Amino acid sequence: MWQAQVLTLFPDWYPGPLGASLAGKALEADRWSLDVFDIRDFADNKHRNVDDTPAGGGPGMVMRADVVGNAIDAALMQQPEDAMREDWPVLYLSPRGKVLDQDMARDLADKKGVTLLCGRFEGVDQRVLDARQVKEVSLGDFILSGGDLAAMALMDAVIRLLPGVVGDPETLEEESFEGGLLEYPHYTRPKVWEGIEIPAVLQSGHHGNIRKWRQDEAERLTRERRPDLWLRYQGQKTKLIET
Amino acid sequence: MWQAQVLTLFPDWYPGPLGASLAGKALEADRWSLDVFDIRDFADNKHRNVDDTPAGGGPGMVMRADVVGNAIDAALMQQPEDAMREDWPVLYLSPRGKVLDQDMARDLADKKGVTLLCGRFEGVDQRVLDARQVKEVSLGDFILSGGDLAAMALMDAVIRLLPGVVGDPETLEEESFEGGLLEYPHYTRPKVWEGIEIPAVLQSGHHGNIRKWRQDEAERLTRERRPDLWLRYQGQKTKLIET
Repeated sequence: MWQAQVLTLFPDWYPGPLGASLAGKALEADRWSLDVFDIRDFADNKHRNVDDTPAGGGPGMVMRADVVGNAIDAALMQQPEDAMREDWPVLYLSPRGKVLDQDMARDLADKKGVTLLCGRFEGVDQRVLDARQVKEVSLGDFILSGGDLAAMALMDAVIRLLPGVVGDPETLEEESFEGGLLEYPHYTRPKVWEGIEIPAVLQSGHHGNIRKWRQDEAERLTRERRPDLWLRYQGQKTKLIET
Repeated sequence: MWQAQVLTLFPDWYPGPLGASLAGKALEADRWSLDVFDIRDFADNKHRNVDDTPAGGGPGMVMRADVVGNAIDAALMQQPEDAMREDWPVLYLSPRGKVLDQDMARDLADKKGVTLLCGRFEGVDQRVLDARQVKEVSLGDFILSGGDLAAMALMDAVIRLLPGVVGDPETLEEESFEGGLLEYPHYTRPKVWEGIEIPAVLQSGHHGNIRKWRQDEAERLTRERRPDLWLRYQGQKTKLIET
């Protein structure tokens, strides 16, 4: 069972959306587990502060190395004894991190678990990130008010890749980024809506033509919307032909 | 006041994390507003279905154009009469969309509001996206089980940029992606933690040296971790010198 540990200042937010729908059903079915650590519980300094002003000046507050270190150590203590760091990374959600993508999500789904440190304020004291070998992971090139929504999104992306979570494994094969392309457009009943009909080929029952149409549409959308993915896809394709 | 409309199958999830901390205080202070629409309320077909099987076959379920169309129209009806689409975009959270970044968040913060369509299942019937001129926005190159966590992250990124939400405006100037660089490392008390001291320069009180150290660290981190941003930053820098 894949295990998630979350270190947060907002333990009440969990499981939240991860306790319902696909992730929630998987949680009930013991396909993953969630342990939440309240970082405030580890503030054993005189004033029970979790944060303090930045050394060298500047705006905002920085989360203290001693408090965060205590919280991480408590999480590590609760891991199974045979959990090696390479099988169970400690990740800090931060815009300075490696950007999450589907490859990373698949990689994390193969781990035994993951420990997610959710920051707030300006950030976390760099010493604890270095000393505890915390890897930084970013949801993207934008700034959130804290790491919790990023941690939830990361868990959601991973959980749906765990064995047995998505009912029909074909779902995972036909989606965006599988095969390096964005996904083709979808249609469903009613057949005519506001005078617009579902494309004729999708109603033809001709599986070969449908497959070709979907492939063409996936290529068109990727070319139009994501030239970066399209270039990479063409590289891959050429390579496949060459070898 | 910036207004967010959310169309979702999980209205209970809102405001959730957006009702606490920075975004929650801003919500209470009327710096933004949140209207949640339950997509199920707009399923007026015989069986009150929100989804159906994909035309042309394949796994999963697709959200119906008529149901989603009704929900979007209801949201549009509640917008102020003078809301033009360019001032109030309708966005569908989807991995096929334009990837959210800090520039897009700033742009959305300048709008009157935003209508966010949160999908589930395989996706939404393409006809309603076309007919209602819905723009697709992606949180990144990974797949979530639905659009809600992406919508929450997008709102969080935008809300903190609204006037008066972050107390010290300097916070917004000193963070990652401002100026094209990742942010420098942070430190705070205690001065020594596990035998490691805060870098001496940050304790020197010499503002010029501190500024230079932070700039150097921001450049080093960006170069090491994000060659793509580093290249762009160098381009900008050169341009600034040339003009």
